[in-house]
Amino acid sequence: MAEALVLERQGVLSIRDIDLPQELGPDDVRIRIHTVGICGSDVHYYTHGRIGPFVVNDPMVLGHEAAGTVIETGSRVRNLKIGDRVCMEPGIPDPISRASRMGIYNVDPAVTFWATPPVHGCLTPTVVHPAAFTYRLPDNVSFGEGAMVEPFAIGVQAAVKAAIKPGDTCLVTGCGPIGLMTALAALASGAGVVFISDLAAPKLEIAGRYDGIEPINVRDENPRDIISRHVGADWGADVVFEASGFAGAYDDVLSCVRPGGTVVFVGMPVEKVPFDIVAAQAKEIRMETVFRYANVYERAIALIASGKVDLKPLISETFAFTQGGAAFERAASARPTDVKLQVMMPGATRT
Amino acid sequence: MAEALVLERQGVLSIRDIDLPQELGPDDVRIRIHTVGICGSDVHYYTHGRIGPFVVNDPMVLGHEAAGTVIETGSRVRNLKIGDRVCMEPGIPDPISRASRMGIYNVDPAVTFWATPPVHGCLTPTVVHPAAFTYRLPDNVSFGEGAMVEPFAIGVQAAVKAAIKPGDTCLVTGCGPIGLMTALAALASGAGVVFISDLAAPKLEIAGRYDGIEPINVRDENPRDIISRHVGADWGADVVFEASGFAGAYDDVLSCVRPGGTVVFVGMPVEKVPFDIVAAQAKEIRMETVFRYANVYERAIALIASGKVDLKPLISETFAFTQGGAAFERAASARPTDVKLQVMMPGATRT
Amino acid sequence: MAEALVLERQGVLSIRDIDLPQELGPDDVRIRIHTVGICGSDVHYYTHGRIGPFVVNDPMVLGHEAAGTVIETGSRVRNLKIGDRVCMEPGIPDPISRASRMGIYNVDPAVTFWATPPVHGCLTPTVVHPAAFTYRLPDNVSFGEGAMVEPFAIGVQAAVKAAIKPGDTCLVTGCGPIGLMTALAALASGAGVVFISDLAAPKLEIAGRYDGIEPINVRDENPRDIISRHVGADWGADVVFEASGFAGAYDDVLSCVRPGGTVVFVGMPVEKVPFDIVAAQAKEIRMETVFRYANVYERAIALIASGKVDLKPLISETFAFTQGGAAFERAASARPTDVKLQVMMPGATRT
Amino acid sequence: MAEALVLERQGVLSIRDIDLPQELGPDDVRIRIHTVGICGSDVHYYTHGRIGPFVVNDPMVLGHEAAGTVIETGSRVRNLKIGDRVCMEPGIPDPISRASRMGIYNVDPAVTFWATPPVHGCLTPTVVHPAAFTYRLPDNVSFGEGAMVEPFAIGVQAAVKAAIKPGDTCLVTGCGPIGLMTALAALASGAGVVFISDLAAPKLEIAGRYDGIEPINVRDENPRDIISRHVGADWGADVVFEASGFAGAYDDVLSCVRPGGTVVFVGMPVEKVPFDIVAAQAKEIRMETVFRYANVYERAIALIASGKVDLKPLISETFAFTQGGAAFERAASARPTDVKLQVMMPGATRT
Repeated sequence: MAEALVLERQGVLSIRDIDLPQELGPDDVRIRIHTVGICGSDVHYYTHGRIGPFVVNDPMVLGHEAAGTVIETGSRVRNLKIGDRVCMEPGIPDPISRASRMGIYNVDPAVTFWATPPVHGCLTPTVVHPAAFTYRLPDNVSFGEGAMVEPFAIGVQAAVKAAIKPGDTCLVTGCGPIGLMTALAALASGAGVVFISDLAAPKLEIAGRYDGIEPINVRDENPRDIISRHVGADWGADVVFEASGFAGAYDDVLSCVRPGGTVVFVGMPVEKVPFDIVAAQAKEIRMETVFRYANVYERAIALIASGKVDLKPLISETFAFTQGGAAFERAASARPTDVKLQVMMPGATRT
Repeated sequence: MAEALVLERQGVLSIRDIDLPQELGPDDVRIRIHTVGICGSDVHYYTHGRIGPFVVNDPMVLGHEAAGTVIETGSRVRNLKIGDRVCMEPGIPDPISRASRMGIYNVDPAVTFWATPPVHGCLTPTVVHPAAFTYRLPDNVSFGEGAMVEPFAIGVQAAVKAAIKPGDTCLVTGCGPIGLMTALAALASGAGVVFISDLAAPKLEIAGRYDGIEPINVRDENPRDIISRHVGADWGADVVFEASGFAGAYDDVLSCVRPGGTVVFVGMPVEKVPFDIVAAQAKEIRMETVFRYANVYERAIALIASGKVDLKPLISETFAFTQGGAAFERAASARPTDVKLQVMMPGATRT
Repeated sequence: MAEALVLERQGVLSIRDIDLPQELGPDDVRIRIHTVGICGSDVHYYTHGRIGPFVVNDPMVLGHEAAGTVIETGSRVRNLKIGDRVCMEPGIPDPISRASRMGIYNVDPAVTFWATPPVHGCLTPTVVHPAAFTYRLPDNVSFGEGAMVEPFAIGVQAAVKAAIKPGDTCLVTGCGPIGLMTALAALASGAGVVFISDLAAPKLEIAGRYDGIEPINVRDENPRDIISRHVGADWGADVVFEASGFAGAYDDVLSCVRPGGTVVFVGMPVEKVPFDIVAAQAKEIRMETVFRYANVYERAIALIASGKVDLKPLISETFAFTQGGAAFERAASARPTDVKLQVMMPGATRT
Repeated sequence: MAEALVLERQGVLSIRDIDLPQELGPDDVRIRIHTVGICGSDVHYYTHGRIGPFVVNDPMVLGHEAAGTVIETGSRVRNLKIGDRVCMEPGIPDPISRASRMGIYNVDPAVTFWATPPVHGCLTPTVVHPAAFTYRLPDNVSFGEGAMVEPFAIGVQAAVKAAIKPGDTCLVTGCGPIGLMTALAALASGAGVVFISDLAAPKLEIAGRYDGIEPINVRDENPRDIISRHVGADWGADVVFEASGFAGAYDDVLSCVRPGGTVVFVGMPVEKVPFDIVAAQAKEIRMETVFRYANVYERAIALIASGKVDLKPLISETFAFTQGGAAFERAASARPTDVKLQVMMPGATRT
């Protein structure tokens, strides 16, 4: 039995004891959780009780963006030791599946993922996790940043899929947390400039504080015009990341990308979108999709540790574990000035 | 003035003299045309007078799939000599444009293309063409096959974009001429097996005559079931080529491709299609598009010359130039057993 | 205890009982071995007692090219069932290592490999093997062909690394078993033509029986001249596979490849070779290396099953297990007309 | 006739009038040169009279790293106008050659290159150049930086060839001007950290002033040890750039790169190097080579303009054109604290 932040059912959270697996296998580590970020999916399970086919039928511990400290190691673990400060990939694949053998373990059909029904998440004081998916944090990366590695990893996965070349002109459509992570990852991956478009001025204001990220408020400006001024009227962005999920954005994406350019679909529209195949063909573009991440955690950590990416300004507020319910209420209220809210576990001190 | 098969306006063809540019530049060759294939786009201009934004406002010579013999060479031409049997890329880019310098001359916005208004095509006894886009045919490749290089090149471009790996399981949706070309190109590019789906039994029957191509009649069978039996229920085709352009096919494409697989959009739907972005993301697929071709003519010719691809059975009938009108009528009638109809120019003998 | 063909020490083989691990884990299968091919490395351990840093200090069972039948399955095995005819990857990585998670399990430093000291091989009636590295053979693939999958997989790995495009002109230097496997894999992967060079006429004669493979006897002809006649004097082969390991071949490789082309190093020279970095730079070539294989067994099997690659003519002779010593003597004699010698286990019938 | 800095023969420079082609074609621009950097190859022609097969048989104008201002445009030029501040690619390919059509115009056998015998360079007040290979400088990029684009482009080409992924650990062997350019390009292309090794402390000191570049003095430290501490003893750098051209460096390169990693050969050894093919295979590394650059000038300019790469500290001294001889003497003396010496043309003012 362990204390945890439990989604009892749609709309009902409680902090209470719950039975969680605690057995340490030879390839596992036990981690004392320090900080957990709240993701849009956590909030969606809280407010809607489901995401697509994943339905909360039984009480489920929330949380999948976590950092903490190793407190016990399995007998075969070599890459980690007690006391290591770490963050964890929340998805656990079958390591000998066909997809895993190919290095694309994120699309292994057998993968389990924290806080995706019926799998419990990590908003609880300790977890057991495979050492292979637990990553050491350098001393200069805080627990708060460590808990940001998960969402940032999605941006890094998008940048890897894009295969950004140095000096690329990029556009990100949508300035929510994932759009912002994608813009930062693209910039750190060699982009010369990253334009980011949205309707919400406060979000764009936060993005624009980063050198190299140029906000475009689509109320006032047409992204196609901005791109044309930058690269020429018959050309376009080398890479466009669609990170809004709005059906209306897909035409913009195709008008803004250059001939032979790349589009990465990061945002998840709630239903099918009308898509102009012929417009994509006329520029012979390549389109990539992103599903979580594989083999990018160490990359994400390296970029944070090197100072190339500063995620600290994006941690909008940190709540005590006992205030977890308030944290979710705040997250559900979707303030445009909030990028990331985090929860600090009992006994954690801020470093 | 030269005799040519002229589309006077929608629905009206004539064989008559027309003024065509005949000046030979230093990098050009003059070619006596031997055989010209009739493409679906030629027929569409004939029957509809336009394709999308390209409208036949003035009389236009049709035809862009051609083979012939070099009869004169410009002063700087080194790669060709008089008497060479050749086929030609119908698109002529600006060789110093941004796209051309990157090797993607097919998406150069300045490209001109035979029989795309207002540019005349090649259904006329002689043409002048840049030597750089004119390719020598080996002795064992007939003029008829040479005139098939153009449509086959689209299939090869699709196979190149797919980056087929040896032993890949492929699916082509749509068994029209381009679907068939794509299936043959995929097979010659290393696929272990190529499934091809359609509703029209006669088309599938032609495809099924090739070892390694497995027809699927979607009236009787579900492509997803066939793929599952071949590669396992939780897996899929490594590469799916969408070559039908039917809006209904796009869901099939996503259900049939494997996690981490590739989809190539070859078919051109007449309007936007409803597309399931999230389903594409769940498998983290890559999507490529095809616009004509670049740098594949020599590849296409090599595959034909090596005997790996036999296009001869797909030349359904050859018409004399004087019967060009009848050839277009036959093409417009869209017999399911016709793959390619060709026109042989006056004086041409069949080799 | 099990009977096995044991290399007691350099130069001494015996067939005798030896203690081998037989415990079946939940993810393993037990396989009754049918056919085992003799590899050059097996012969080298026999004749020299070592290969580089790998020294035979204790008696070791030889053999790593095997096919057989599943006779028992571990509790978690889903992909195989008793009675399945199979072949096996001889290398077993740590599935959760850094390299394995990236899909390049062949270069996992922790990999163990059959018949590489101190690991025993498979020239014994039954073996236990991870189901994840055991592959089902289609009905139309014989055990003899199944035991050829291992060496053919090296050729397929080379072809995958080359990223052959359809119609590529290829050259393989060296017509030993691995050169031949590479040539066949390249041809099946889309090459328009594969030239193969060697000094030994009997080996070239065998290669030349395959349509699309063009032998070059370097006693009589210069590969550079042949390539020039085929693709032009200022051009070269798209891909050159170095499969001889002779120091003298590396200059040829650089002179034969085209600007922007690819060289794959398959052959393993016994010491460092003098290499012309500047000549490689002048053509800006890409160079790939091959170490065994990863994720290609299913590809290799698909190409054999499809009929694209016929390995049967390359099985020069099959010996009974009791004649294993004679088989190794014959292999050590290195007849130029022998490509692959195989050993059939007791009770095996030829299919 | 125009004034120019002329290499009369080995060891003899003069500033004098010389007959240079000045005819402006329709696709050309005329440029008033502002700043020209001195490259190691310029110095080598001066001190040795040749580089490999390229021999100075006749007086030749030196210089190929230039920036200036457009003063006349040909009739078809659209991308530039009079007054544009620009820099130029010194290599001019045949735009319709086989290599150019593939986008690899740098390896076109027909390319001509400034200050490579018998082609004159740009140390003269005005030049005529194809507009397609002339690139506009943004306002915030000085002429001095513009003249640095050429050497920096080599680093960018190396980074593009490496296909750096975000967070990669990189090593550059050799801290000369090109090693430094490569390190800066790698860092700007997404590397998490770039180690750079050399024997010369003053060079390393300059490199170490850049955040993210970690100097290794091989007199004191073993690069392999440093890499091991950073990424683990059984792992290595994701990418190693060999930029020293010293024969002894090639073993280090292989010991420092990770399994499945990439090596890029940038440095040009004066003769063949002993190369350990088997060591490369054991890690299954990919090796890329660099020959000048193609399609990277705009990338290089974008990185400079964005502030990601600051080349200004590397311009060690600027000489007046009339002091061109002194500039070459200084360059020939190879001070370890000199990275780049530049020459400013008559009438040029410093911006």
